[in-house]
Amino acid sequence: MNDKNNNDRKTSGGGKDGHYARLRRAHRAANPAEPSDGRILLYGLHTVRAALQNPARKPLRLLATRNALARLELDDETLARCQPEIVEPKAIDRLAGEGAVHQGIALETMPLKPKRLDALGAVDLVLVLDQVTDPHNVGAILRSAVAFDAGALITTARHSPVESGVLAKAASGALEHIDHIEVRNLAEALETLSAAGFQTVGLDSEGPAILEKTVSAQKVALVLGAEGKGLRQKTRETVNALARLDMPGAIRSLNVSNAAVLSLYVARRAMLESGKR
Amino acid sequence: MNDKNNNDRKTSGGGKDGHYARLRRAHRAANPAEPSDGRILLYGLHTVRAALQNPARKPLRLLATRNALARLELDDETLARCQPEIVEPKAIDRLAGEGAVHQGIALETMPLKPKRLDALGAVDLVLVLDQVTDPHNVGAILRSAVAFDAGALITTARHSPVESGVLAKAASGALEHIDHIEVRNLAEALETLSAAGFQTVGLDSEGPAILEKTVSAQKVALVLGAEGKGLRQKTRETVNALARLDMPGAIRSLNVSNAAVLSLYVARRAMLESGKR
Repeated sequence: MNDKNNNDRKTSGGGKDGHYARLRRAHRAANPAEPSDGRILLYGLHTVRAALQNPARKPLRLLATRNALARLELDDETLARCQPEIVEPKAIDRLAGEGAVHQGIALETMPLKPKRLDALGAVDLVLVLDQVTDPHNVGAILRSAVAFDAGALITTARHSPVESGVLAKAASGALEHIDHIEVRNLAEALETLSAAGFQTVGLDSEGPAILEKTVSAQKVALVLGAEGKGLRQKTRETVNALARLDMPGAIRSLNVSNAAVLSLYVARRAMLESGKR
Repeated sequence: MNDKNNNDRKTSGGGKDGHYARLRRAHRAANPAEPSDGRILLYGLHTVRAALQNPARKPLRLLATRNALARLELDDETLARCQPEIVEPKAIDRLAGEGAVHQGIALETMPLKPKRLDALGAVDLVLVLDQVTDPHNVGAILRSAVAFDAGALITTARHSPVESGVLAKAASGALEHIDHIEVRNLAEALETLSAAGFQTVGLDSEGPAILEKTVSAQKVALVLGAEGKGLRQKTRETVNALARLDMPGAIRSLNVSNAAVLSLYVARRAMLESGKR
């Protein structure tokens, strides 16, 4: 997680631009046939089932093997939203790209439209990502956020991953269950959250106290930075508190999605405890 | 995590073999130049630094850009174990493959030799993986295991990932800090652990109680199955208890590495609590 003393994201030769160029190439390599008109290709049983069940999601084209369609177990109403084309698995291989575990089902659709911060409802826990870009990590984070009933995932409009097949597969349906809020200026958003009664807590391996002892409000916004890079200086200065995760072992940094799930668990417990006092 | 009612790992067309063939292809695609004589290529600053500092690790060839070598900050004794070849970043790009964030440093070495169960020392927490194969997940799990001071990672000899650059990078140095124990028969290993005083707890979304209420011993072995597939029937029958993670939200399954880190945290806390009683 947030260890400001290292620089995983920088390559010695290319610096920051080289890194992003690399990410974009890797993304394109993993999504060779992602349609170019803004459509994305979702795949995998959980992912496609959840997408078809989401009224906000506009299905454009559903491809399925006969087996996968049976395993989707959709009711007629949901299925009526998009007539499936029955295909051979290879047809989906070609669309989803080598290595994509599509389970015989794929859905072309448009990405969900991110919301604005003023659309945030009456929620008590939100997760804020400060330039976390890896789609596998963000997908896993979305899944954990839904599992711990976080009300929204807040990211910056820039330096955040776009919705993609890889991200959606890692989220395993969670994309459809949580609001994605995009903001231009993270520091301003944190101030708005703070004014709305959220305790904003930045996770940082150098934080002065452990998260268990830091969470003290009934509404909490957890802020996580990218692995290696950590929270940006401005973010660090804007949050109400910095806190670290309590780890007894020889390594005191976690994969960012691992740090996220642990933060969510610890925050939920601490909110419950502080509510009892 | 362990939801026995779905089958993420099966593709409708290929079934189990198709899935593994796919994984192998994906692995080869991600590691195009991994040497074929059993050597592996480790890359990334944390990963290579930790490997060079591990006396059990035999360095064969160290490639580094001038910048990366400076950033490694190794003492002379460690550096004397392997004379670095100064190269341009592109030389490492070619070896590590497109998309590998190598940070200008790569080390050819042999995989560490897995240990046998009877080599398990005086440890109080171990993590057991029942056929979890994804190298990114296993790498992240190793990192969390070290962070929570688990004494060993136990896997089956078959259906487990081999040490690779991808796994090592995800582990971010953790590979060098924890024993990897390989067993032929997981059920027998669980019985041996149980006889040695470990409470063996299988994580299962259908478990009868939450993990917080299940851990009751001072020595614990946490057993996790692959995403989608979950624990095998024999594993399920052999553990002392099955337990679920306590999640309040709409999705009650996590990425397997997220489930692992949460299990480790919860188990450590419960062991501490039960020690106080």
